[in-house]
Amino acid sequence: MLKEMLENVRLRTPLIHNITNYVTVNDCANILIACGASPIMSDELAEVEEITTICNALNINIGTLNSHTIPSMLAAGKKARSLSHHVLLDPVGAGASKLRTNTALRILDEVKPSAVRGNISEIKALAMGEGSTKGVDADVADTVTDDTLEQSIGFVKSFAAKTGAVVAVTGAIDIVTDGNRTFVIRNGHPMLSRITGSGCMLSAMTAAYLAANPETPLEATAAAVCAMGLCGEKAQERLTDCDGNSTFRDYLIDEIYNLSGDALEAGAKYELR
Amino acid sequence: MLKEMLENVRLRTPLIHNITNYVTVNDCANILIACGASPIMSDELAEVEEITTICNALNINIGTLNSHTIPSMLAAGKKARSLSHHVLLDPVGAGASKLRTNTALRILDEVKPSAVRGNISEIKALAMGEGSTKGVDADVADTVTDDTLEQSIGFVKSFAAKTGAVVAVTGAIDIVTDGNRTFVIRNGHPMLSRITGSGCMLSAMTAAYLAANPETPLEATAAAVCAMGLCGEKAQERLTDCDGNSTFRDYLIDEIYNLSGDALEAGAKYELR
Amino acid sequence: MLKEMLENVRLRTPLIHNITNYVTVNDCANILIACGASPIMSDELAEVEEITTICNALNINIGTLNSHTIPSMLAAGKKARSLSHHVLLDPVGAGASKLRTNTALRILDEVKPSAVRGNISEIKALAMGEGSTKGVDADVADTVTDDTLEQSIGFVKSFAAKTGAVVAVTGAIDIVTDGNRTFVIRNGHPMLSRITGSGCMLSAMTAAYLAANPETPLEATAAAVCAMGLCGEKAQERLTDCDGNSTFRDYLIDEIYNLSGDALEAGAKYELR
Repeated sequence: MLKEMLENVRLRTPLIHNITNYVTVNDCANILIACGASPIMSDELAEVEEITTICNALNINIGTLNSHTIPSMLAAGKKARSLSHHVLLDPVGAGASKLRTNTALRILDEVKPSAVRGNISEIKALAMGEGSTKGVDADVADTVTDDTLEQSIGFVKSFAAKTGAVVAVTGAIDIVTDGNRTFVIRNGHPMLSRITGSGCMLSAMTAAYLAANPETPLEATAAAVCAMGLCGEKAQERLTDCDGNSTFRDYLIDEIYNLSGDALEAGAKYELR
Repeated sequence: MLKEMLENVRLRTPLIHNITNYVTVNDCANILIACGASPIMSDELAEVEEITTICNALNINIGTLNSHTIPSMLAAGKKARSLSHHVLLDPVGAGASKLRTNTALRILDEVKPSAVRGNISEIKALAMGEGSTKGVDADVADTVTDDTLEQSIGFVKSFAAKTGAVVAVTGAIDIVTDGNRTFVIRNGHPMLSRITGSGCMLSAMTAAYLAANPETPLEATAAAVCAMGLCGEKAQERLTDCDGNSTFRDYLIDEIYNLSGDALEAGAKYELR
Repeated sequence: MLKEMLENVRLRTPLIHNITNYVTVNDCANILIACGASPIMSDELAEVEEITTICNALNINIGTLNSHTIPSMLAAGKKARSLSHHVLLDPVGAGASKLRTNTALRILDEVKPSAVRGNISEIKALAMGEGSTKGVDADVADTVTDDTLEQSIGFVKSFAAKTGAVVAVTGAIDIVTDGNRTFVIRNGHPMLSRITGSGCMLSAMTAAYLAANPETPLEATAAAVCAMGLCGEKAQERLTDCDGNSTFRDYLIDEIYNLSGDALEAGAKYELR
C-alpha cells in the first residue's frame, strides 16, 4: 500500500506549488524532485492563483510569513481548494507568536486545508489557541512518548475531526490520523532534528504524495512520513565519524532520491489503529 | 577560445550583481565564486542602482519575482545598461503566469538585456506572448531534439535578432546564438534536470563570463554553457549508487571550482553554424 | 577558557533570533544547530518583538536588507536590548551602498548592539562613514597583515570603545576586542573566503556563544572566531583533489558539529594583548 503511494509520485510527477519560508526552500525544492515531483515557488499575490491553477497541490508553510505573503497564502489556498486540489498547511512556529498562531488558525478556517503537518507543540497551539513552542522546535514537555501515546492519539484525532484534515504530528513517534483511523509510525532518527528543514521537507513531500494519490490522503500522508523517517535512518547509517549535520542533509535527500517502493514497504515501521 | 573565456573570469574576478530568486540564490553565489567571480545580491530599490554601478554585470532572474523586486529589476537593469554593463535575463517560469510573461517582456523592452537564458518553453512564451510551460520546467512537447533542431535554431535565431540579445536555450541540446552565428552544444547530463537551480546557476555564471569577456558575448555565453554541461557530466561520473541529487549538486559546484581552461577546451562538444 | 565557552552553548542550547539575508540563511540555521544552539528566523515587524522576547540573543545581518526588514531590525534590536539580550550586528556590504552604511550606523546608534562582526572594509566604512568595500568582500587594500597589524588593532580598539561593542574584524588575521583587551587570532584558511556565508555563519554562531556566555562577551566572541577558523582548517584537510567549495561548505558545518571543547582549546591559535 505504501509502495503504491510512492510509485504514484514517480509515475505522475505532480507539480507542487509552494508558498514557503526562505530558510529551507532550496531543500524543499530538491526533495520534491528527489521523490519524483516538480516544484514551483511563488508567493506574489498577483500570480499565486494562476500558478496554483496549473499545479496539482499546494504546500503552505508559514516559517517566515510576512504581511505580503499571508494574503498570498489565503488567496492561493482558497483557489486551490476551489479546484479540489489538496492543500497542506505547515504551521511553523505556531505558538511562538500571535501572528503565527492567528495566521495558521485563519488558514485552517478560511482555506480548510486537507492536511496539516507539524510538531506536537505547534498542533497544541492551534488546538488550544495558545502554546509553549520553543521557537520552531517542539517543547520537551510536549514530547510524545509511549507513556503519553494514548492521550496524544486522542488529542490529534479530535483535532483532525474538528478541522476535517488529515493531521500528521511528527517527532520521536509520529501520529497520522484522519480522525478515524490512525497510523502510529516509529521510523526516524534523532539526526532529523539536528538539521533545519526536515519538517519543511516532509511537508513539501507530503503535498506531492497527496497530489499523486488524491483519493487516499491518509495513506498518502502516512507513506510520506514513513519515507522521511526511513530515509533518515538510512542517511544516518552512511555517516562516518567526520560527518555531521550538513552531510546528513545531503544524504537524506539522496536517500529519498533512491528510495524504491519495495524498500519503503520493507522498512516502514507502523501500526494502524 | 573557450579556454580564454574561462581564464578571463579567474583573472578578472568580476563582481556580479544578482537580483534573483530565494530558492537557488545560495547555489548561485557559490557557483559564482567557484568559477572565479564574486557575487553580491541586492533587490532593494533604494540601493540597486548604486550596487550595480560598482559591479561588472547584472543577472536578473524572475524565479520568485514580486511587487517589490520588479521595480528593482527594471531600475537596476536600466542603470547597468547605461553604464554599458552586460545584463542577463533569466525568464524563469515565463508562460506559467501572466505576471512572469509580462515582466520578462517588459524587461526585454525597457532594459534591452544583452543576453537571455532560458528553457525552450520560456523562450517560446516570450516570443509568442503565450506558453505552455510546465511550472519552471520545459514542456515535453517543446523539447529540442535532432528532429526539431533545424526548426528550433531558426526560431531562436529570429528571437535573438528581434531582441538584440545573445540567446541561450538550454536543454538536452543547447542552442546559443546572436542571430547570426549559432553554437549547438551537446554537453550535459539528465541529472542536471534533477536538481533545482542548474538553470539559475548557469545564468549567474554566464553573467560572470560576459563581464570578463565583454567584447565577445556569443563566445562567452557558449563557454559558460559548455562549462556547465561538461561539469554536469563530470559530477555524474563521481556519483556512487548511494548518491542522489543532493550530492550531485555539491559535485557540480565542485567541478566548476576545479575546471581548467584546458579541460573545458578538451571536453566541450559543440559545432558552430 | 575557550572550551568553557563552547561547552556552554551545547549545555544551554540558546534560541537565536536571526534577521538575516536570504542568501546564506540555510547555512546559518544549520551551523547554529551544529554548534548546539537552536535557530529561528523572523523578519516581519508584526512579530519580531514577540519572537525576540522568547529568544536568548539576536543576530542582525543586513546582507539583503530592504524597506520592510530595516524597521524590523530596529524594533527587534531595541526590544532585545531592553531585555538585556545580546545583539550582534553583521554590517554586510557597509560601504557598498549608502543604504547599507546608513542602516548599519543607525542600528549602531539606536540599538547599541553588544557585538559587531565584519570584514575590515565594512568596519572602516562604519568608522569613517565611507568605504571602498568590494561588494560584500574586503578590499585588498584594507587587508590586515603583520605589517599593518598594530595600526589595525588600534583602529579596531577605538571603534570598539566608541560603540561600546565587542568588535570582531575577521580576515587572514582576526582581531577581537572590547576596546581594552584584544585577541589576535591566526586560525583559518583561505578556503573560508571561497564560499558564500562564512562570515554570516560566524556571526550567527557568535550570537549563540554570546547567549550562552552572557557575562564574558569578549571571550565568547573570541571562542566563536577561533572555532570557525579551526574548523575551516579541519574542513580543508578533508578535501580531496575532486572537491571544491561546495563540499568545503558541508565539511565546515560538519566540523562545527563535531568540535569538542578540548579540540578547540588545543587548536586555537591566538594571543591576548
